[in-house]
Amino acid sequence: MRRLAMLIVFGVFGLGAAAHADEGMWTFNHFPAAQMQADYGWAPDQAWLDHVRLSTLRLAEGCTASFVSGDGLVMTNHHCARGCVGALSDARHDYIADGFYAAALKEEKPCPDIEADELMGITDVTGRITAQTAGKTGKAFAEAEQAAIAKVEAGCDTGADRRCEVVTLYNGARYDLYDYKRFQDLRLVFAVEDDAANFGGDPDNFEFPRYDIDVAFLRVYDHGKPLHPLDHFRFETTPAKAGDIVFAVGNPGSTQRADTVAQLDFQRDYSLPDRRTLFSEEAGILWAMGQQSPELRRETLTDYFFTMNSLKAYQGEQKALVEGPLMARAEAAEAALRQKVAADPALAADAGAWEGIAQAETHYGQILMRYILLELFPERVMPRDVGDAMTLIRYAGESVKPDDQRLEAYTQANLPALTQEIDAKTPDYPAVDRQLITWWLMDVRYYLGADDPDVKAIMGRESPAQIADAIVFHTRLTDARYRAALLAGGAAAIDASPDPLLVFARRLNGPARAVLDDYDNNVKAVITQNAALIAHAKFALYGTSVYPDATFTLRLSYGRVKGYEQDGRFVTPFTTFGGAFARATGQPPFKLPASWLQAEPDIDLATDLDMAMSVDIVGGNSGSPVVNREGQVTGLIFDGDIQSLGGAFGYDGSVNRGVAVDATALKLALAKIYHADRLVREIDQ
Amino acid sequence: MRRLAMLIVFGVFGLGAAAHADEGMWTFNHFPAAQMQADYGWAPDQAWLDHVRLSTLRLAEGCTASFVSGDGLVMTNHHCARGCVGALSDARHDYIADGFYAAALKEEKPCPDIEADELMGITDVTGRITAQTAGKTGKAFAEAEQAAIAKVEAGCDTGADRRCEVVTLYNGARYDLYDYKRFQDLRLVFAVEDDAANFGGDPDNFEFPRYDIDVAFLRVYDHGKPLHPLDHFRFETTPAKAGDIVFAVGNPGSTQRADTVAQLDFQRDYSLPDRRTLFSEEAGILWAMGQQSPELRRETLTDYFFTMNSLKAYQGEQKALVEGPLMARAEAAEAALRQKVAADPALAADAGAWEGIAQAETHYGQILMRYILLELFPERVMPRDVGDAMTLIRYAGESVKPDDQRLEAYTQANLPALTQEIDAKTPDYPAVDRQLITWWLMDVRYYLGADDPDVKAIMGRESPAQIADAIVFHTRLTDARYRAALLAGGAAAIDASPDPLLVFARRLNGPARAVLDDYDNNVKAVITQNAALIAHAKFALYGTSVYPDATFTLRLSYGRVKGYEQDGRFVTPFTTFGGAFARATGQPPFKLPASWLQAEPDIDLATDLDMAMSVDIVGGNSGSPVVNREGQVTGLIFDGDIQSLGGAFGYDGSVNRGVAVDATALKLALAKIYHADRLVREIDQ
Repeated sequence: MRRLAMLIVFGVFGLGAAAHADEGMWTFNHFPAAQMQADYGWAPDQAWLDHVRLSTLRLAEGCTASFVSGDGLVMTNHHCARGCVGALSDARHDYIADGFYAAALKEEKPCPDIEADELMGITDVTGRITAQTAGKTGKAFAEAEQAAIAKVEAGCDTGADRRCEVVTLYNGARYDLYDYKRFQDLRLVFAVEDDAANFGGDPDNFEFPRYDIDVAFLRVYDHGKPLHPLDHFRFETTPAKAGDIVFAVGNPGSTQRADTVAQLDFQRDYSLPDRRTLFSEEAGILWAMGQQSPELRRETLTDYFFTMNSLKAYQGEQKALVEGPLMARAEAAEAALRQKVAADPALAADAGAWEGIAQAETHYGQILMRYILLELFPERVMPRDVGDAMTLIRYAGESVKPDDQRLEAYTQANLPALTQEIDAKTPDYPAVDRQLITWWLMDVRYYLGADDPDVKAIMGRESPAQIADAIVFHTRLTDARYRAALLAGGAAAIDASPDPLLVFARRLNGPARAVLDDYDNNVKAVITQNAALIAHAKFALYGTSVYPDATFTLRLSYGRVKGYEQDGRFVTPFTTFGGAFARATGQPPFKLPASWLQAEPDIDLATDLDMAMSVDIVGGNSGSPVVNREGQVTGLIFDGDIQSLGGAFGYDGSVNRGVAVDATALKLALAKIYHADRLVREIDQ
Repeated sequence: MRRLAMLIVFGVFGLGAAAHADEGMWTFNHFPAAQMQADYGWAPDQAWLDHVRLSTLRLAEGCTASFVSGDGLVMTNHHCARGCVGALSDARHDYIADGFYAAALKEEKPCPDIEADELMGITDVTGRITAQTAGKTGKAFAEAEQAAIAKVEAGCDTGADRRCEVVTLYNGARYDLYDYKRFQDLRLVFAVEDDAANFGGDPDNFEFPRYDIDVAFLRVYDHGKPLHPLDHFRFETTPAKAGDIVFAVGNPGSTQRADTVAQLDFQRDYSLPDRRTLFSEEAGILWAMGQQSPELRRETLTDYFFTMNSLKAYQGEQKALVEGPLMARAEAAEAALRQKVAADPALAADAGAWEGIAQAETHYGQILMRYILLELFPERVMPRDVGDAMTLIRYAGESVKPDDQRLEAYTQANLPALTQEIDAKTPDYPAVDRQLITWWLMDVRYYLGADDPDVKAIMGRESPAQIADAIVFHTRLTDARYRAALLAGGAAAIDASPDPLLVFARRLNGPARAVLDDYDNNVKAVITQNAALIAHAKFALYGTSVYPDATFTLRLSYGRVKGYEQDGRFVTPFTTFGGAFARATGQPPFKLPASWLQAEPDIDLATDLDMAMSVDIVGGNSGSPVVNREGQVTGLIFDGDIQSLGGAFGYDGSVNRGVAVDATALKLALAKIYHADRLVREIDQ
C-alpha cells in the first residue's frame, strides 16, 4: 500500500492579502471578530472559539476530523479514512465496496496508521527563531532556522502524547508554536460503501450539485478504552437553511495566495504540468492493472482514487492560472507594491526580494524533476516499503547527530510519528508494487537520462524491472516485526542489514539527499528569507489585518449557506436524496449501493442531502465540521466546487463554494439506510 | 491497430522569420541559392534540385523516404515503416522483435496502408484562392476558402495516381498547388530488429550521442512489378566527414516560428500541458497492458512507442517555451513589429491582427479538450475501427454534396487515400481496443462532465465499458470486405447499416462535427485571416527573403556535419559501432540484437555509426535522406537532439542538430550484420 499524499504537496507558503467578505482562513489566535461582527451582525466569543478548537482534530496524513461524542467518537470523510478501510480489507472482506459497521464496541477495528491531533495552544516564538537566523543566508540560514525550530519544539515536547510544531506563517515573518495532544490509537467504527461515499466518481469530483454521503466514524482509544475528550460537538438542533451563517473548521493544507508572479509562473510552467504528466501516467497504470482481475482492482483502487483526485485538483489550479483574471491581477498588484517599496527609503532593504525569489524559482525549475522523482516519489508515491527503507536509512544517519542538527522528520519530537509509521501493519500487494517500482525507475532514467551520474549511481547496469524484482520478492521489510526491530536497533542494526531494499535505499539516498539539500538551501531558504521581506513591506504599507496562507494548521472560515450563478443559471445550495436516485444509472460511478435501493421507500426524497456554502476552503479541509452559531455540527465538508480549486491562488466569493453533507442527511442515513442504531444513540446523547 | 498520428499535430501554421545561417526549411521553388553561395561558397544548381526533388518521397502518414535504386527500392526509417512491420506480424512471426528480410523479390510483403508521394511540380495559385475569399470573414471565409481550394485541386487531379494539394504558406499570404505522383502499392523488403532500430529506447530518444540503425527498405510496385522511378539517389562515393556541407531533404510537419505571443501562450498554457496529460495516461495504460503477456506486449508496443515519442517531443517543446530566451524574444519582436505597423499609415489595416488572433486563441482554449477528445481522438488515437466508422459516417453525409462544399478529406481528389485507408487489412487486437475505447469515453465524461449535453448525446445512460463491449465484440467493421462494401455502397449502404459501431459513430458525429465547425470557423479561419495580415506587414517592412513555416511539404535545409558544446564539453559529430557495444547492458532498451553480437568480430569498431549535422529539421523529417554536394545519399535522418525540439518555435544553430545514420554504417550493417546481399548489390548498382 502506498502512503497517501493527499494534500501536502510541493507548494511554498505565502502571505495572504487583505480579506474580502467570506474570504480568509483565520487562525484561532487572530480571529477577526470585530470585522465579522460588522459584516454579519454576529461573531463568536472566546468560549465558542475554545469549544470549536478543542472539538476539532487534525488527521496527520492530510485531513480534518471532529469529536462527536463524549466517548471519543470521531467523524471524518470516508476518503480520509480510506487508507484504514482498505488496509483492513482482504480477499474475503472488501470494506471499501461493502462498507463497515461495528455493531458493538468490541468489533471496532484498529487502524494501522492514523494519527489525530487536538490543538491545545498557540505561542508566538518569532523572536526565538529570528534571533538565531539574523544575518544569515542560504545554507547557513537553513541550518540555523532548522536548529532553532528543533530547539523550540524539543523544549515544548513533554511526552509521546504531545506534538509540538513550529509553524512558519507569512513566509517567515512570523513563527508560531502549535502545541497538540496526539492520539495514535484510532479504530474504525463505521464506513459507508464506496458507491455512497463517492457517488459520481471522478466526473462529479470537485463539482456541485453533488449527492454523496462521504462519511466514516472512528473512535479514539486511550490505554485500550474509549477516550473521554476535553470537548466535543453535538449535532444541530435546527437544520441548516439557505442564508445561515456557517463556519468551516479545519486544516487547509497549502495556498499560494501571496506568491510573487515568479512563483505563479513556476506553478504554471513547471510544477502543475509536470505533476499532471506524472500523475496521469500513474493513473493509467493503476487503472489498466485494476482491469485485470477483481483482486488487482481492489489493490489499486485507493491509489487510483487519490491519483485521480490530485489530477483534477492540479487541472483546476492550472485552469485558474491561465484562464481567469488571476495572473493579470497578481501582476498589477505586484507592480504597484514594488513601486511603493521603491519610493519608500524605509523599505529599501525589501526592494530586491522579488528578484531573489525569481532566481530561486529558476533554480527550482532546473531541479524539479530530480527533486520529485528522487526525493518525493519514494515517500509519497511508491509502495510504502520503499518509503520505509528510505526512512530507516535516514534515521540511521540522523539519529547519531545532536537533535538540532537533524532533518526535521528525525528529531526526538517526531519520533512517535515515525515509530507509528514504521510499525504500522498494512497489507502487501507485490504484483502492484513491482509494477509501480519498475515504472518509477523507468521514469527516473527517462527524465534524468541514462548517462546521468545519479541514475548510474542508483541503477548501475541493472534494468528497472531487475531492480524491482530484487526488491519486491526478496525484501523482509514487508514484515512489521522486522521493521520495528531495525528501528529499535538504530543505526547499528540498520547499517548492518543486507536486505536488498535497504541496499537499494542506500544507493538512492545519496542523490536524493543531495537534491533535498539543494532544494532546502537554494530554493526554500532563499524564498523564505525574501518572502519575509515582502511580508515586512506589506505589513508596513497595508497594515496587519491579513490572514496567513494555509499551513495545514487549524483555521476558521466563515460564510453562509449559499448558491451561485453558473452559465447564467442559479444553482441552489441544497441537493436532495431524490436527486441522488434520479441521477443513478446502475453503472459505476453512478451506481447507488443496495442499502440505498432497499431503503428508498423509507426515505422522504425531499430531504436535503448535500449543501454548498461560501466558506473559504482547500485540500486539508476534507472532514471539516460545518459549525453553526450555536457551536453545533450542521454538516460535514467533503469537497469544493470546481471554482474553489482556484482557491490555491485567490478566493472568489461569487462562485467558490465548500460542499458538505447536510447533518440531517447524515442522521437519516445512519438510521434508515444503515440501521447503525448504536451510533445514532451515541450521537444523540 | 491504431492509426499513427506521428507528426501532424494540432498546430497552426505561421510565417517564418528571416533566416540565420543554417536556419531555414526552404521550398524547392524559392531556394536561396545566392545566399548559400555567399555563406558556403557553393550552392546547388537547378539540375541538382530536380534530381533531389524527384528522388525524395513523402510518406503520407507523416514521414520522408527516398528512392535508392532504379527498381523502386525505397529507404526510410524503421519507425516510419513500423506500422507495416507490426501489421505483418502475428503470434508466430514477430518482425518487430526479429526484423525482416525478403531474400528474394517474391518474398516482399505488401504493406496494408502506406502511401508515398513524389513531388512533380509547384504552382502559385494565390490569386485563384484570394479572389474567392476577398471581403469575407469567419464562416463565410472558411467556406469560400474551402470551395476555392477544392476547385483548384479538382482541376489538377488527373487520376488515382495523382495527388494535388493546395498548401497554405505564410498563413494564407500565399497558396501553392503541390502536384504529386501517388504510389499506394509498397511492399516490405527489409527491417532491422527493434533493438537495433531503437537502441537506447525512450531514454536516448531525442538525444545525441546515439547508436541506432533506424532503417527499413520498402519497394514501390506498379501494376504488380517493381517501379522504375523517374530518378533515384546513389549512395556516397566518399564517406561524410566533419565540416562537410550536407542537406536534409524532407517533409517537416509543422513549426510555429512566426506565431504571435498569444499563440505561444496557448501552446504553453493549453495545448502542450493538455496533450502531455492525455498522452501520459495513455502511455501508462499501454505499458501496464504490455506487462501482462507477451501477446499483449506485441499488440501494444508500437502504440506505446509512438505515444512516448510524442510525449518527449511535447516535453521538449514546453521546455523550450518556458526555459530559454524564446518567449522574451518573441515578445520583444512582436512589440517592435506592432510599433512599426502602428506608425505606418499604409499598414493601418494590419494593426488589429494580433488582437484578432488573441481572441481566437482564447476561444480555442475553451474548446480545446472537446476538440481533442471528440474530433481528434477517434481518428488519431483510438483503434482504427473507430476512425473508420467516423470516416464512413462522414463520407455518407459529404458524398451527396457538390465536391466544393465537402470537408476536404471527402473530396473526389482525396478518394484514393480514403479508399486505401478503409480497405487496408490490419490485424485486430480486441483486448487492447476494448481498454482504449473504455478509457477514452471515461475521459470524455471526466473532462466534459457527466451533465454535458454532448456527453449525454454520445453516451446516454450507458457506461464507457458497456459501450466499448458493444462496439468491440459486435461490430463487423473489423472485416475489410464489409468496410469496402459500405464505402462502395455509399450513403445508402452506410446509412442502412445497423452495425453497433456505426450506430455509435452516428451519435458521436453530431457533437464532433459541431466542435470541428466551431474550430474551423472561429479559430482556424480567424487565425488564417489575421496571420495573413501580419505576413503582409512583415513582407512590407522586412522584405521577402523568408521561408514559410513547415507544412508537411518538401523542403531543403542545409548545414554541415558538426558537433556542439553541451555542459562545457564538446560533443563530436560521430559515434562508432564500438560505442554501441560499450553502451549495451544486455537489458532492454540497451540490448543489442543477437545479429550484432554474432557479427562483432567482423566489424571494425572504429567505423562511424551515427552523425550530427547543423540542419534545421523537425518531426516529418524522419526518413529524410542526407544528401551531399554530389547529390548522393550520405546518411539517413532519424532524430534530432533534445535542443532541436525547440525548433518548433525557433532555430538555434549553436546546439540544434539533426541526427542521422551514417551511410557507411548502413552499408556495413546490410553486408556484415544482416547478410542482405541482394540489397547490397541493388544499392551498389
